[in-house]
Amino acid sequence: MQKAVVNNANKAYALLKADADKILKLIQVQMDNLTMPQCPLYEEVLDTHMFGLSREIDFAIRMDLIKEHEGKALLDNLEKQLNKIHESHNKNNNNILY
Amino acid sequence: MQKAVVNNANKAYALLKADADKILKLIQVQMDNLTMPQCPLYEEVLDTHMFGLSREIDFAIRMDLIKEHEGKALLDNLEKQLNKIHESHNKNNNNILY
Repeated sequence: MQKAVVNNANKAYALLKADADKILKLIQVQMDNLTMPQCPLYEEVLDTHMFGLSREIDFAIRMDLIKEHEGKALLDNLEKQLNKIHESHNKNNNNILY
Repeated sequence: MQKAVVNNANKAYALLKADADKILKLIQVQMDNLTMPQCPLYEEVLDTHMFGLSREIDFAIRMDLIKEHEGKALLDNLEKQLNKIHESHNKNNNNILY
């Protein structure tokens, strides 16, 4: 592969990974401070951000900047980390309630 | 500019323009068939799609695939066309009501 192509692919992946991390950070801050995961607005904000990232990733795949499996792994990984945050949050809440 | 760079820029712009056209088509079909522009779900769907497109455009700008003013023009143009559809829809509705 040409050097410029590899550099572009690396840049694309780094940008997408940074955007995924931003969503994670946003949710983490929300959990730590607002503790309202049942709020419909929370769900909506998260869904919108996940949709935005999935559109970016889809565009990068169509531009041959990243492979389809890389894009899928990015989204899957983000979802797994969000689930962990949710679980940890729910566990803490249960400890307080009971 | 190198040929490959121009080709990539053209491809990026064409993909983004096609995505903007898809949103326009979606809203046009919704207007023609469902006639529910006041529905909160309609607003939410449109907002989510606009957000997704803006994330794609932002990513393309950060990858130096399109210029910032091109991305802004794409979004502005889409919003203008959506406004026209809304106006035309409201006018037709008013004609029926009065």
